[in-house]
Amino acid sequence: MAAAKRGIITEEIKAVAEAEKQSAEAVRQRLARGSLVIPKNVNRTNVKLVGIGEGLRTKINANIGTSTDLIDLKKELEKARIAVEAGADAVMDLSVGGDIDQIRKSILKEVQVPIGTVPIYQAAVEAIQKKGAIVQMSEDDIFNAIEKHAKDGVDFVTVHCGVTQRSLQELIKQGRVLDIVSRGGSFHAAWMIHNKKENPLYSNFDYLLELAQKYDLTLSLGDGMRPGCIADSMDRPMIEETIILGELVDKAREKNVQTIVEGPGHVPLNQVEASVLSAKKLSKNAPLYLLGPIVTDIAPGFDHITSAIGGAIAAAAGADFICYVTPSEHLALPDVEDVREGVIAAKIAAHAGDIAKGIGAEQDLAIAKARKAQNWRRQIELSVYPPRARAYREKCLPKNPRVCTMCSDLCAIKIINEYLKK
Amino acid sequence: MAAAKRGIITEEIKAVAEAEKQSAEAVRQRLARGSLVIPKNVNRTNVKLVGIGEGLRTKINANIGTSTDLIDLKKELEKARIAVEAGADAVMDLSVGGDIDQIRKSILKEVQVPIGTVPIYQAAVEAIQKKGAIVQMSEDDIFNAIEKHAKDGVDFVTVHCGVTQRSLQELIKQGRVLDIVSRGGSFHAAWMIHNKKENPLYSNFDYLLELAQKYDLTLSLGDGMRPGCIADSMDRPMIEETIILGELVDKAREKNVQTIVEGPGHVPLNQVEASVLSAKKLSKNAPLYLLGPIVTDIAPGFDHITSAIGGAIAAAAGADFICYVTPSEHLALPDVEDVREGVIAAKIAAHAGDIAKGIGAEQDLAIAKARKAQNWRRQIELSVYPPRARAYREKCLPKNPRVCTMCSDLCAIKIINEYLKK
Repeated sequence: MAAAKRGIITEEIKAVAEAEKQSAEAVRQRLARGSLVIPKNVNRTNVKLVGIGEGLRTKINANIGTSTDLIDLKKELEKARIAVEAGADAVMDLSVGGDIDQIRKSILKEVQVPIGTVPIYQAAVEAIQKKGAIVQMSEDDIFNAIEKHAKDGVDFVTVHCGVTQRSLQELIKQGRVLDIVSRGGSFHAAWMIHNKKENPLYSNFDYLLELAQKYDLTLSLGDGMRPGCIADSMDRPMIEETIILGELVDKAREKNVQTIVEGPGHVPLNQVEASVLSAKKLSKNAPLYLLGPIVTDIAPGFDHITSAIGGAIAAAAGADFICYVTPSEHLALPDVEDVREGVIAAKIAAHAGDIAKGIGAEQDLAIAKARKAQNWRRQIELSVYPPRARAYREKCLPKNPRVCTMCSDLCAIKIINEYLKK
Repeated sequence: MAAAKRGIITEEIKAVAEAEKQSAEAVRQRLARGSLVIPKNVNRTNVKLVGIGEGLRTKINANIGTSTDLIDLKKELEKARIAVEAGADAVMDLSVGGDIDQIRKSILKEVQVPIGTVPIYQAAVEAIQKKGAIVQMSEDDIFNAIEKHAKDGVDFVTVHCGVTQRSLQELIKQGRVLDIVSRGGSFHAAWMIHNKKENPLYSNFDYLLELAQKYDLTLSLGDGMRPGCIADSMDRPMIEETIILGELVDKAREKNVQTIVEGPGHVPLNQVEASVLSAKKLSKNAPLYLLGPIVTDIAPGFDHITSAIGGAIAAAAGADFICYVTPSEHLALPDVEDVREGVIAAKIAAHAGDIAKGIGAEQDLAIAKARKAQNWRRQIELSVYPPRARAYREKCLPKNPRVCTMCSDLCAIKIINEYLKK
């Protein structure tokens, strides 16, 4: 970011500009302004350069990682591979069970996309193990966890700097249905209530920026106050936190630290655009990273669909980075198949949002032309996840290879191709 | 409709008002204006009364039926049952293979929801069998098929009255990527081109209205010109057809025939609201029945998701009736599992749209409260499809039955419940 501000077009800027078919100067300007980030830790080797932000294709992230109930390193590495194969642009390791250090290091080697983590998770788990409770964490424990992750080469970290006494008071006054559903947010809030102190990530934000500078670590400012149900959407604690995060973005930009702002959460369809636009305005156009949004609370088992609805609308409205939600959300840790379904749904949402903004519709046109030509091989190749399209086709082959078993010889395309030519 | 216009609150109006928790007078007024329909054939017995239109919960339809490649009556009956069990408000039988009469009659007995058909399909199939080609159909063949279906008790029929010489000329001038993708639309267009005649359903619309009156058959005015890809969305043939359908709605209302207008199709996200609002305006607020809309062309194998995105936005914008799209769309005839996934995705879309309009959010609030209370039994009961939520939960049970394996004892809700109480 410092180089971009000085007008230098770095290798990273060039690579992103090329991948997005944009001018390097445009990418440099956005990076300098802070409306675009390229997460890459100085200690990470062999990482794919991915730009996130203004004017670029919407990127998607897949969360993986162990829980304390389910610990299997091999499975987590498989999830990472499947996520990238299915189209994830970034992966976050949210492990809280097993040898967290080893899992993180293994994932950093396993895939080449930018890797993010939430260091407070490890700090909390270790506080329980060593001191008996999350609230016994010291301030140093929190920063040490962040530095450890940064040293290992993690490209971006979620830091819940907006869970402050100010936003916590708004939360208490609000009387929410589902107070806090962010894991990191609940750790910080519990710590602050128990210790009667300000969130160290807020009170010592300058130190956090020093760490970020040292490792070129991108800060993803977490939304600990994100609404956990439709009824809590866009309420005062959520907006209060977004204001705080926006103020911190200003500080980070002064120190040339790349920042992303995180957003909700559970948001009804008619508030998705408003929540994107307000987060963008309050953060002076920082790249916006959304979890979902999920547009109804009633669909556990299908939240890859509820979040594809919200994510597509959000992407069209300007969200830059979408965290997938898997079908197992609200019910269980996702398994490998859930990861695959989640990534594909998020990819569809991101693309649907992108073409609404004029990015990437060439692929739609190409597949439409393949349909017109009744070229099945090409339709499948051009599809978002060819193995699935191929499996559907092969499961049920028509007698006439030019059509499909839905309409068979009554295929509208076949009939109209025949008669319109006359 | 005639009774509603005379101010009579019929049994049908009462039943719909009760189901929707609205005043019978409000329902009567909308039915009289034509902004709401209650499809029910005079010959159909034991049908559930379902209102579709202004101010009501968004309804969903599941298309089932044989193709010429896949004929299995038992499977079609199973699809009908599964569709209704998963939440379909109506079912359309699109059979074109096997004993079409027997299949239709069996489906009419199998489920109690309103049943729709597309009689031109049977007319076309029989024309191929008896006369060698679709274009050899006589005008009588078309009307006889409609009357046969009506006699059997079908509650609503799709009739492609808007595929006229006028809209066909617009289509030819437009130079579309994917000219016509509507099966019925392609049959009519082929017939009109070959026979150099106007579409009989348009030129003899008055006769169609007589038939509809006789059986109290609801006419669903089909969108033969619906765009089949993103590039063709909202183009001149599509809008021209909608104007024609709007004119026909006026005529039908004069004769007290209930009408629905059908809409697209493939529509980019940023045009979904516009396409709903324009169809509503051009039809003077007739109930709007959408297929999808699908917001990108690139996702064969996942079009239940692409259409859930479009359907949710459309429902929020005022669409009244959403036809599901299954994961097998564009690839194969849906099987029983595809039907289930398609119905659930459409139901989620309809509900997400409804809560954005202020209808039905009690269910979201109730499930959010169950989450707060860590009451898993109730969360599952309240979910859109409890068997799926239950299966996810039971596949992967946590050690602590109050949480789930995603966060286990690090559950944000558990932690915040503990500390916020202090």
